[in-house]
Amino acid sequence: MGKQTMVFKDDIYINQIATVVGPKEGEGPLKNSFDKSYDELYCGESSWELAERKLMSESIDICLQKANKKPEEIDYFLGGDLLNQNITASYVARDKEIPFFGLFNACSTSMESIILAAVLLESGHAEHVMTSVSSHFSTAERQFRYPTEFGGQKPETAMYTVTGAGSAYLSKKTSNIKVEAATVGKVVDYGIVSPFDMGSAMAPAAAHTIETHLRELNRRPEDYDAIVTGDLSRIGTPILKSLLLEQDIDISKVHQDCGVLVYSTDQKVFSGGSGCACSAVVTYGHLFSELKRGTFKRILVVATGALLNPTMVQQKESIPCIAHGVSFEYVE
Amino acid sequence: MGKQTMVFKDDIYINQIATVVGPKEGEGPLKNSFDKSYDELYCGESSWELAERKLMSESIDICLQKANKKPEEIDYFLGGDLLNQNITASYVARDKEIPFFGLFNACSTSMESIILAAVLLESGHAEHVMTSVSSHFSTAERQFRYPTEFGGQKPETAMYTVTGAGSAYLSKKTSNIKVEAATVGKVVDYGIVSPFDMGSAMAPAAAHTIETHLRELNRRPEDYDAIVTGDLSRIGTPILKSLLLEQDIDISKVHQDCGVLVYSTDQKVFSGGSGCACSAVVTYGHLFSELKRGTFKRILVVATGALLNPTMVQQKESIPCIAHGVSFEYVE
Repeated sequence: MGKQTMVFKDDIYINQIATVVGPKEGEGPLKNSFDKSYDELYCGESSWELAERKLMSESIDICLQKANKKPEEIDYFLGGDLLNQNITASYVARDKEIPFFGLFNACSTSMESIILAAVLLESGHAEHVMTSVSSHFSTAERQFRYPTEFGGQKPETAMYTVTGAGSAYLSKKTSNIKVEAATVGKVVDYGIVSPFDMGSAMAPAAAHTIETHLRELNRRPEDYDAIVTGDLSRIGTPILKSLLLEQDIDISKVHQDCGVLVYSTDQKVFSGGSGCACSAVVTYGHLFSELKRGTFKRILVVATGALLNPTMVQQKESIPCIAHGVSFEYVE
Repeated sequence: MGKQTMVFKDDIYINQIATVVGPKEGEGPLKNSFDKSYDELYCGESSWELAERKLMSESIDICLQKANKKPEEIDYFLGGDLLNQNITASYVARDKEIPFFGLFNACSTSMESIILAAVLLESGHAEHVMTSVSSHFSTAERQFRYPTEFGGQKPETAMYTVTGAGSAYLSKKTSNIKVEAATVGKVVDYGIVSPFDMGSAMAPAAAHTIETHLRELNRRPEDYDAIVTGDLSRIGTPILKSLLLEQDIDISKVHQDCGVLVYSTDQKVFSGGSGCACSAVVTYGHLFSELKRGTFKRILVVATGALLNPTMVQQKESIPCIAHGVSFEYVE
């Protein structure tokens, strides 16, 4: 039977990261952990799509600068976003001229790209790999729900798409953050049909990946200083905890959610943040800082994705979801 | 400097393949090379989207059956399609319950999935990998151009999206078809803005990948019995040949195009076939049969993809393109 979990034998490291975010994220509780923020959603561009492209492009530039690398020194670029046909990543790949693997697993593309980057490094076919994901509040609203100008009211289960991009440069060269193990998700579907309730839809996928990860590695939640889901928000989080408790797994002492961490409760963001960038900017910006600070020694990041399509939602199909988990360790 | 080409050190094989196609493909010149064909575009389903899902699902089922494997024996499934948010592959991944990596590089996803499957096998993290891609004439028209009911006239440069799905099961177990080497494409953009002229848009990407592949491996076109592009069609093919001739590379003796091979000239398909399934069903169905028959010893399949988004086209942005090349060898 196929095992879903990989333990990386070679030492694969997150060599450098960079995060660029929008106004709400730049004013939120994690503001000091990001490399750059914009104070308006257009980020100085003429359209939201161009703004999102700028976020991803700049996060790669900053990451390369920190690593003292040029784009032509990077073997492969693995990237994705939420826009139709992965267009942000495709245009950025064009501009950076790095051989490109386009990925799409919705908001879990962040950890999907880390897993495949680690596999590429371990296969010996790459020495330097860049990953990047992005999302933007306004481009996501236009595409998945209603144009923001329509001003449709939202229920409290709705989430607020994080505007930002997170890039990570991986190599075998020692840094302090090691990619230790990963669990590739299966697609799980509990029959949720509302695009305004992604937290509930994604919780079973996160539960499945966490249970599998712990079982296949024979670990307990306490083996992690934090088990951090991508964007379950305040609605999905209790569902996740309860689903895992049914299997005698209690993550309540170590669980956090990027979608809850990224905004403060007085910011109007409904039940919390979501989007590809949510898990990426919180993990690369905030969580990795905590690893370096010694707060955490080992964390499991479980990026959750709703494999959502507006046409399918209109046809009353339910929303299949997936979650990819990556264990990161601090190494002296 | 990063090299774009991988030579697989371990012996990675295409263990089994399966192809399921629509009516036009099933009546075309390659009809005997496909495992199954439907005589109407709905394939017995109530919508085109469900029809496409059925094509992908059945191609996996047939592939598993030929390999005498159950879905739970497959470690990872790598798949993609052209529909927004990769929805065909996502629903199929849900139904098969195989850990899933969603990929998107437009029509070049076929070879992208083969490359990443080979890397997964070579890394030692997988023993059994399934790949699948699909496309469907009617779902693609609805999404990328105009609804077919609109009956818009098309120029002769337009292409006809192949209805079908191709699946490949890869492992280290010996079969006759070895994945020998691969070149990962860069995104290339020559400024083409018309979604009805994909052949011209994609030719420079194919030229770039072929030139890189031959240079990095120190090979000549004659080292291949066939260099087969995915879907350049009758319009893109002469552009490709001419771009390569400018670099003293003459592929005229060995070049073929899946989009030209899949239909006969008396089928009304404009300049030829396109779509994720085009390169997949022609490669897995027809070209691999020719390898087994001894016609070819080594072929280079260069799957071409137009990273197209209708919104960007409306905003007069040009269409970035990519091409991934894989060298397949017949082994006794």
